[in-house]
Amino acid sequence: MKPIISFVSDFGLDDTWVGVCHAIIKRSCPDATVVDLSHQVPPFDIRKGAVVAAAGVYQLPFAIHLVVVDPGVGPSRRDLCLVTGSGTRLVGPDNGVLLPASWRAGGVSDAYAINADNVEAPLATFHGRDVLAPAAAALACGEEPASLGEPVDPASLTEAPFRPCVVDGIYIIGEVLESDRFGSLRFNVTAEEIERLGLASDRLEISLGHNSLTVPFGKTFSDVSPGDPLALIDSSGWLTLAVNQGDAADRYGVTDGTTVRVRADWT
Amino acid sequence: MKPIISFVSDFGLDDTWVGVCHAIIKRSCPDATVVDLSHQVPPFDIRKGAVVAAAGVYQLPFAIHLVVVDPGVGPSRRDLCLVTGSGTRLVGPDNGVLLPASWRAGGVSDAYAINADNVEAPLATFHGRDVLAPAAAALACGEEPASLGEPVDPASLTEAPFRPCVVDGIYIIGEVLESDRFGSLRFNVTAEEIERLGLASDRLEISLGHNSLTVPFGKTFSDVSPGDPLALIDSSGWLTLAVNQGDAADRYGVTDGTTVRVRADWT
Amino acid sequence: MKPIISFVSDFGLDDTWVGVCHAIIKRSCPDATVVDLSHQVPPFDIRKGAVVAAAGVYQLPFAIHLVVVDPGVGPSRRDLCLVTGSGTRLVGPDNGVLLPASWRAGGVSDAYAINADNVEAPLATFHGRDVLAPAAAALACGEEPASLGEPVDPASLTEAPFRPCVVDGIYIIGEVLESDRFGSLRFNVTAEEIERLGLASDRLEISLGHNSLTVPFGKTFSDVSPGDPLALIDSSGWLTLAVNQGDAADRYGVTDGTTVRVRADWT
Repeated sequence: MKPIISFVSDFGLDDTWVGVCHAIIKRSCPDATVVDLSHQVPPFDIRKGAVVAAAGVYQLPFAIHLVVVDPGVGPSRRDLCLVTGSGTRLVGPDNGVLLPASWRAGGVSDAYAINADNVEAPLATFHGRDVLAPAAAALACGEEPASLGEPVDPASLTEAPFRPCVVDGIYIIGEVLESDRFGSLRFNVTAEEIERLGLASDRLEISLGHNSLTVPFGKTFSDVSPGDPLALIDSSGWLTLAVNQGDAADRYGVTDGTTVRVRADWT
Repeated sequence: MKPIISFVSDFGLDDTWVGVCHAIIKRSCPDATVVDLSHQVPPFDIRKGAVVAAAGVYQLPFAIHLVVVDPGVGPSRRDLCLVTGSGTRLVGPDNGVLLPASWRAGGVSDAYAINADNVEAPLATFHGRDVLAPAAAALACGEEPASLGEPVDPASLTEAPFRPCVVDGIYIIGEVLESDRFGSLRFNVTAEEIERLGLASDRLEISLGHNSLTVPFGKTFSDVSPGDPLALIDSSGWLTLAVNQGDAADRYGVTDGTTVRVRADWT
Repeated sequence: MKPIISFVSDFGLDDTWVGVCHAIIKRSCPDATVVDLSHQVPPFDIRKGAVVAAAGVYQLPFAIHLVVVDPGVGPSRRDLCLVTGSGTRLVGPDNGVLLPASWRAGGVSDAYAINADNVEAPLATFHGRDVLAPAAAALACGEEPASLGEPVDPASLTEAPFRPCVVDGIYIIGEVLESDRFGSLRFNVTAEEIERLGLASDRLEISLGHNSLTVPFGKTFSDVSPGDPLALIDSSGWLTLAVNQGDAADRYGVTDGTTVRVRADWT
């Protein structure tokens, strides 16, 4: 199978950075296919970058994940290659942006600090082009993670921008991660946790901000009437609150980080 | 020749859906090239999706066309593979979004309801990723449309979001389909109809909204002075009213759906 | 090595032009990889297109550069293939948009007027698809520039939309080329000129608009505290004034074209 590099950044599409990284990768590893997961992460927004990268790992566990969201780029910040428990490889800065993605793939098993001298072009100004993209290309063409640099202690990695949800009795306590183009709200509650905690009932009770609602926990939008809310595990693998043909973010007026409490409704 | 999949959606580029579909296709059919025709169709806008997909078929008749604009996704809505009279293959939901594209390629010759069990990953939440993209990939790698699912009666398909133009005496009566980034207005009048109806004169009389104007029917913008209007068949294959280095949508104040009346001006 | 075509345009991503050009190129030269440098050049903005294309040549000298920003498309405007002193090949209209890119690669060595009959599909309405993209594809698949059309005198080319910086005693006099997504300001002063003029000191004095400031000339953002300005040669190869985790364009209130005066600060 030809290698696939999944690419997330805050570069936007107005400038040349995305294209340059594509070219660097294709030049170094012509067999690699680069798929652009998103480059519309707001500038320097580690939290949003982590949410997108984690959805990417959930959907494309077989890919190499290149994540470039990096407000603190500079000599003191490490570039990382992480290998997860299930074997997914993640490449990006040591600022927490990779960690939620690692949770979706078995957690961090091994971590390496990429040595710029081991990859193509050790300039200091643009790590995405000069260190991270070449490192992803090297992995795509068969290099082992350990060839990229020295191993580092996973406990030394910078913390994730948000935490996994926690269980409190019959509740899962989490937070709003993001709202998407269609106004659907995603929470830091994964498909795996829903299963593990026995929340896979027909209905969920969800409290968020000043709202408390009981919604069908369905598989698809058309299980409810247009304008009605539902909860589902969407393609990101995060628990999602949506309104069929409507905008949940607008209706419930919540913002990223709002606390969410979820329980099964067995009544 | 390597197969090309032309991809239209309302996914936008802020989220991961486009990239995920690319990865699914490349994984399933590495030889396929996916070209992004547009993912900026407004959410759930079947009309605009149909306009874009039809332009795509006009320009890339040799491609497989994957169109994902799907407000009503769910178990009751069929996924389709259409084969047109001239052999172009279209993949998308049964909500009318594919039909104007079929008009540009000889009309619907055969229609098949894609069976999710015949393609890769039969999850219900994300038909684009789980049914439609794998179906397009299967076609790209040589599968026959009939292998995707049972044939369905073309007469049973959901209607198109707009109709073809009609002829009324010396007039063509149509409507405004869209305005583009440059403010050019496209009408549901095709190059073929212009030819067939003998409208290929040097000048056209166009009435739209409160405006009636006689414009050169030229081949290129520089046939008129900057600021002057002209009609042409642009790269979409739709009759287009434009202003050289200006904005026709702004000048004539019309919106999508406005009725348009066109005739040749032989004076 | 597989050929890479770097593609810059003002097409935006809402319409189908970019995808159509990709498809035309892939069909004509399946081995070519097309990388999208930027399609968000504002409509008809030759200046911005030239800035982006020049950054592309700096970063990807090995690529074929296809640049389509073309307010004056029409029969009287030539389509060009330029070969630079260092061998980079540029394809685009004769309106000045290619020239700053040629400066980054040794200047124009040879120029050819592309004959539409020598490339795939000689329609007149859409030169990007019908002349320029096929010409780039032909180069990618091994055609020589001279096979595309007759040689033309480089002195006859339309002027660039801005000039190179000039030296006045101990000063470099230039202008603001653009501000990017992160608010960084780029000037028409290149890495090569910084070297040649001995400006590679630790600090630069920069005057622009009503501001005069002395800033570290560093290699990377984290050399200064968040909120502090610095000058650097960024990935575009242009001298750049930035604010660490801030917005220089906003702080200094300058616009494209503002005169800039730079000198080394040896104090």
